[in-house]
Amino acid sequence: MNIRPAQMNDASSIWGIIGPTIRAGDTYALDRDMTEADALAYWLGDDRETFVAEEDGEIIGTYYIRANHAGGGKHICNCGYMTSAAATGRGVARAMCQHSLNFAQQRGYRGMQFNFVVSTNTRAVALWQSFGFEIVGRLPRAFHHPERGDVDALVMFRQLDEAVP
Amino acid sequence: MNIRPAQMNDASSIWGIIGPTIRAGDTYALDRDMTEADALAYWLGDDRETFVAEEDGEIIGTYYIRANHAGGGKHICNCGYMTSAAATGRGVARAMCQHSLNFAQQRGYRGMQFNFVVSTNTRAVALWQSFGFEIVGRLPRAFHHPERGDVDALVMFRQLDEAVP
Repeated sequence: MNIRPAQMNDASSIWGIIGPTIRAGDTYALDRDMTEADALAYWLGDDRETFVAEEDGEIIGTYYIRANHAGGGKHICNCGYMTSAAATGRGVARAMCQHSLNFAQQRGYRGMQFNFVVSTNTRAVALWQSFGFEIVGRLPRAFHHPERGDVDALVMFRQLDEAVP
Repeated sequence: MNIRPAQMNDASSIWGIIGPTIRAGDTYALDRDMTEADALAYWLGDDRETFVAEEDGEIIGTYYIRANHAGGGKHICNCGYMTSAAATGRGVARAMCQHSLNFAQQRGYRGMQFNFVVSTNTRAVALWQSFGFEIVGRLPRAFHHPERGDVDALVMFRQLDEAVP
């Protein structure tokens, strides 16, 4: 698997991954009905760097990294990861998280924060924990899950001062 | 004190309040050097509703309210409040918080979240707690304070299902 910066001509492949995830509406707090153009403008925005994971010439995952806040908060970064449904369970998210942690350290970030991890997304929570992220906050009933109703969302955080695993 | 929606011709008065707060850089995670135009575009953005508090024809405080997330997170709102330095200690922030809680309930929001309360801003923390906000998260050393160095930031949350005090 190769992880590289996204190019403009990756847009339709990226939409092929983020579109179904956004439409499902069960893991990201994004408008389920947002247009392809709006979704790509978000995922490939000027305020972030976006990567793709590819295998055998096919894009199977994508993530972004950005400063989570400006000013006194700019030393903490934030990432979002999405994997192609067809590639689930093949370690794509793990590889992207590893890549993002290394990249964040290179960029000089001193922490990484996930602002809104839907608590029912237990695979993701366990994966982030395996990378040393801790649950530092719980937002009660802050996410309306399309099937499960109101569920908690988690804030997860990892210092980057120490070595990346 | 009267709290009303901000008008375009309030912009210079609003800048007179938010400018010094942004430049001080010790309570908001915003770029201390942001331009007046950028600051006003942020504070009066299309994604939020902005209010001003005035007394004897003078604007002494301002706040915004917006959905904190889209999609499954859009039932939780977020606010930011700033008070004129000259009016500190006169209950302006308290009046604006009270107004925002009532307004949020009218708008149908079911919770209010403050994403990034700088832990050294103890007056604000105590004020939000007096309104029933709880500290639901602690972001370790996530804010670089201009004098105190890296300090924690807090996530504070209040349900709006129950009556506003």
